[in-house]
Amino acid sequence: MTDQETTVAQLRDVVERFVAERNWHSFHNPKNLSMSLAIEAGELMEHFQWLSLDEAALVAADPKRKHDVGEELSDCLAYILAIANAMEIDLTEALKAKMIRNAVKYPAS
Amino acid sequence: MTDQETTVAQLRDVVERFVAERNWHSFHNPKNLSMSLAIEAGELMEHFQWLSLDEAALVAADPKRKHDVGEELSDCLAYILAIANAMEIDLTEALKAKMIRNAVKYPAS
Amino acid sequence: MTDQETTVAQLRDVVERFVAERNWHSFHNPKNLSMSLAIEAGELMEHFQWLSLDEAALVAADPKRKHDVGEELSDCLAYILAIANAMEIDLTEALKAKMIRNAVKYPAS
Amino acid sequence: MTDQETTVAQLRDVVERFVAERNWHSFHNPKNLSMSLAIEAGELMEHFQWLSLDEAALVAADPKRKHDVGEELSDCLAYILAIANAMEIDLTEALKAKMIRNAVKYPAS
Repeated sequence: MTDQETTVAQLRDVVERFVAERNWHSFHNPKNLSMSLAIEAGELMEHFQWLSLDEAALVAADPKRKHDVGEELSDCLAYILAIANAMEIDLTEALKAKMIRNAVKYPAS
Repeated sequence: MTDQETTVAQLRDVVERFVAERNWHSFHNPKNLSMSLAIEAGELMEHFQWLSLDEAALVAADPKRKHDVGEELSDCLAYILAIANAMEIDLTEALKAKMIRNAVKYPAS
Repeated sequence: MTDQETTVAQLRDVVERFVAERNWHSFHNPKNLSMSLAIEAGELMEHFQWLSLDEAALVAADPKRKHDVGEELSDCLAYILAIANAMEIDLTEALKAKMIRNAVKYPAS
Repeated sequence: MTDQETTVAQLRDVVERFVAERNWHSFHNPKNLSMSLAIEAGELMEHFQWLSLDEAALVAADPKRKHDVGEELSDCLAYILAIANAMEIDLTEALKAKMIRNAVKYPAS
């Protein structure tokens, strides 16, 4: 399964089942989850911390480093999905509404 | 369109078109984008910064505050999609692989 | 008063009086304060988010931007001092002990 | 040496010597250092990520955990001192100016 064939709801279900099977719902408070997202974003940054922009642009060309970045990115995404689950936020609706607001703020040239 | 009917690839396209129309590709370096995700994660945390866990759990019951959190969460998601686009990482494959590793690390009881 | 003449304890007192005068001790829980530091670190990063390393190195040469960075840096420092106050951690002792450990980890060439 | 007897300038010197002895000045770009501070703030948050506020308030009573938090807090402080060094910002002046602005924004009751 790839991004082409997978709905956002299906990804949310993957995270939801993982949390339910471990009885982690009581820990999945929005405050804790927002911290968790920021912690994982910090771990993602570690891969680029001391690199020039040119070096950072080349990370994806190295299969091992691309894989490692994908793991950190997955952790970030998992917490976004967990927050959406815990707060019953539809990410597609929220993202599209926000992009319309962004388009007003930053008009295309 | 909701999370039920929308593929991850379709959300990636929304962000990709937005970036392309503004000629922002040169700014969308993975180093800059990882910083951007952490910045937005910080803005998301602001909504829960001084709340108790009980208060944080009630934020979703307030339509205005739920909407505001949804906006910040969308900004975070947009940067994850942008990193996936810039580095050609399939998020579904990466997330599923990571959840399998997490399941080994944290077995279901 | 400058860094030359000011002790760390004096800076801690500035923050402690500010918190005490507003009866904010109940909010100054280490969990909240660690979130606050990460939020302010995000605001600091905003000043460098889209800059090349060369451009970032020149920010200090612009008095207005240097001042703005100094404000964000102060917010970060204030939360570090607040955590030290809330948890009764001596920053000088902790920093010196950590630098000795770092020196073992990264020997000088 | 403790916070009572140590000036901010002396702590800045500890970090400056460490950087100079390793020839790390070229890496100590403000963009990289602001990322580093956010990364370390994330590691600090890990100590409180899943705790209730009551549990977080008790961390300082456990010598081992207090020590561990002190190490993370030192890493955060070291990067603030490094940014002050790299950008020649006087932290005492900046903090006092910011606290005066904060006092206007949040008057004592």
